[in-house]
Amino acid sequence: MDEFRRAADTVMTKYGPASLQYSTTEGHPPLREWIAARSHIPASNVQITTGSQQALDLLGKILISEGDTVLVEAPSYLGALQSFQPYLPNYAEMPTDEGGIDVDALEGLLRAGNVKLLYAIPNFQNPTGRTLSLERRRRLVELTAQHGVLVIEDDPYGDLRFSGEPITSLYGLGLELWGDVDQNHVIYCSSFSKTLVPGLRDAWVQAAAPIIGKLIQAKQGADLHTPTLNQMMITELLPLLPTQIEKVKRAYGERAAIMMDAMDRLFPAGAQHTTPQGGMFLWVTLPQGIDTAKMLPHAVERQVAYVPGSPFYARGGGENTMRLSYSCSTPEQIERGVQALADTIRESLD
Amino acid sequence: MDEFRRAADTVMTKYGPASLQYSTTEGHPPLREWIAARSHIPASNVQITTGSQQALDLLGKILISEGDTVLVEAPSYLGALQSFQPYLPNYAEMPTDEGGIDVDALEGLLRAGNVKLLYAIPNFQNPTGRTLSLERRRRLVELTAQHGVLVIEDDPYGDLRFSGEPITSLYGLGLELWGDVDQNHVIYCSSFSKTLVPGLRDAWVQAAAPIIGKLIQAKQGADLHTPTLNQMMITELLPLLPTQIEKVKRAYGERAAIMMDAMDRLFPAGAQHTTPQGGMFLWVTLPQGIDTAKMLPHAVERQVAYVPGSPFYARGGGENTMRLSYSCSTPEQIERGVQALADTIRESLD
Repeated sequence: MDEFRRAADTVMTKYGPASLQYSTTEGHPPLREWIAARSHIPASNVQITTGSQQALDLLGKILISEGDTVLVEAPSYLGALQSFQPYLPNYAEMPTDEGGIDVDALEGLLRAGNVKLLYAIPNFQNPTGRTLSLERRRRLVELTAQHGVLVIEDDPYGDLRFSGEPITSLYGLGLELWGDVDQNHVIYCSSFSKTLVPGLRDAWVQAAAPIIGKLIQAKQGADLHTPTLNQMMITELLPLLPTQIEKVKRAYGERAAIMMDAMDRLFPAGAQHTTPQGGMFLWVTLPQGIDTAKMLPHAVERQVAYVPGSPFYARGGGENTMRLSYSCSTPEQIERGVQALADTIRESLD
Repeated sequence: MDEFRRAADTVMTKYGPASLQYSTTEGHPPLREWIAARSHIPASNVQITTGSQQALDLLGKILISEGDTVLVEAPSYLGALQSFQPYLPNYAEMPTDEGGIDVDALEGLLRAGNVKLLYAIPNFQNPTGRTLSLERRRRLVELTAQHGVLVIEDDPYGDLRFSGEPITSLYGLGLELWGDVDQNHVIYCSSFSKTLVPGLRDAWVQAAAPIIGKLIQAKQGADLHTPTLNQMMITELLPLLPTQIEKVKRAYGERAAIMMDAMDRLFPAGAQHTTPQGGMFLWVTLPQGIDTAKMLPHAVERQVAYVPGSPFYARGGGENTMRLSYSCSTPEQIERGVQALADTIRESLD
């Protein structure tokens, strides 16, 4: 809190009234430059957005026409489905396994034709916590390039890896493939919400110039620009980011391990969970026949909550699944929560 | 600047981490309550938006389907046309005169049928600076109610009246007509951008419960919520608002008078301007044959700029018109600017 108070004071002193005035739609130049430098691309290929949610909304607006086929993971991020829905896409689901998207199945879907867009979260996916392997990433990038399909890579959690080695982003592989930032068919979205601060609503898109051009137009109509003061505060706080990321990673890694250990000890046989290497979520699959939406009130009675899995499937199904988050709970809360959940599941099984 | 620095510090101290966390889509409760109290409506009929621009975008998203007829003033606010455009409306223009919308012509347009929505800026309109009379407002509200047409009243400048008497809003007349906040067919938008601060991007919508319900859904997909810190800062600064509004009104009133006086002295015959009673803009109509878009570079050479009028017309035309703003210039700058513009116009006439 002290650092944030200081940052607010510093930028208002440094920039004066400009920190409270209208500013450019593209975003605060030093912030765009910092983001661009991370990926070795020009700042003109970066668009600041009011949270990642706005990035998804604007991309939906400029890319999806009614009836366009959009490929999404089964399951996928609910918020993305909500963002795209007003533009009336036709969702086709990519099957997934422990290694993420099944790229053989993807090839079949692309061959069936008429696909406009692929939306994926390769790192510590929301809701499953799974990560797409380098080999599968390469195939995904090549296949979509061959079929002229745009890719939206949503990567809010990429910096929060607490085990295993970092894997090149789809965006990075797209750059390698094309050798030209303005040819890349992969559009990259990330955010400061999971690493630094969610309530200031600061995120970004990296994309080829023609897409950025359309995004600027769409953002002008959507909110003119992301709040000026907030972008300046984030920029001022960037030196804190590495320490902050280390802190978050350590905490999440410990909590994930505690939650998985508790589930392995306490859950009934037939309840399976994913093994995230980073991020905030893991995904539980219960025996067929259990409906996690119907089970939720019973869990809440025992003081534990989760997100039922079915709404994460664009075309329905997954009634026996649920998303758990370990990000905000203490070890004691996690132990008690998993115990309460295990009791609830056993009760449902009986 | 001191007040804003203090407000940032105060809310971060008072609310702690909650000031930087995710918050509700509807908006910061004390801010919604303050807005609601002004109009004697429940806080649940208020939705906070990331600037008025977002209000227009979200309303377009939930209300306009491809091909719907949307009535707009000729000319109307360019930013609204930009917001609605992605939803592919069919614009029909309401003719206007010195008193704003011609309500007899409006009746004809409504009778022609198939109108979904009417968008209007009754106070100190952008771009013309004109104000709709109470009598015309009543007719507009009654006619649209009869024809089942929703009205979006955009009122960012309403508090900035520097001459004449305040006139009841369309929203207020809708409340009188229906006697029920949740029956009102008028949707009201306003903002803190013109009265307090633009760069924090805080504005709002007042509407019937079914519309607010859809707005919440749309906003969830668009940016989850308006930045938390910003809403808290605005709330903290509300006690300053009356003094600030008085200051702004006095300054704008003086500048408008100086600009009109200079135009009356210096402009060639045949150049006409509107007479705003508040707000930031006035509208100039030059003799037919002058194209203000083509004239702009010549004006810029003489160190003066304006906004050419044609883009404010949803269906084109108005090439001989321009929007001038007096809000940010000193009396000396205004005198020099009008002189330079007069010279440019004379040159074009020759």
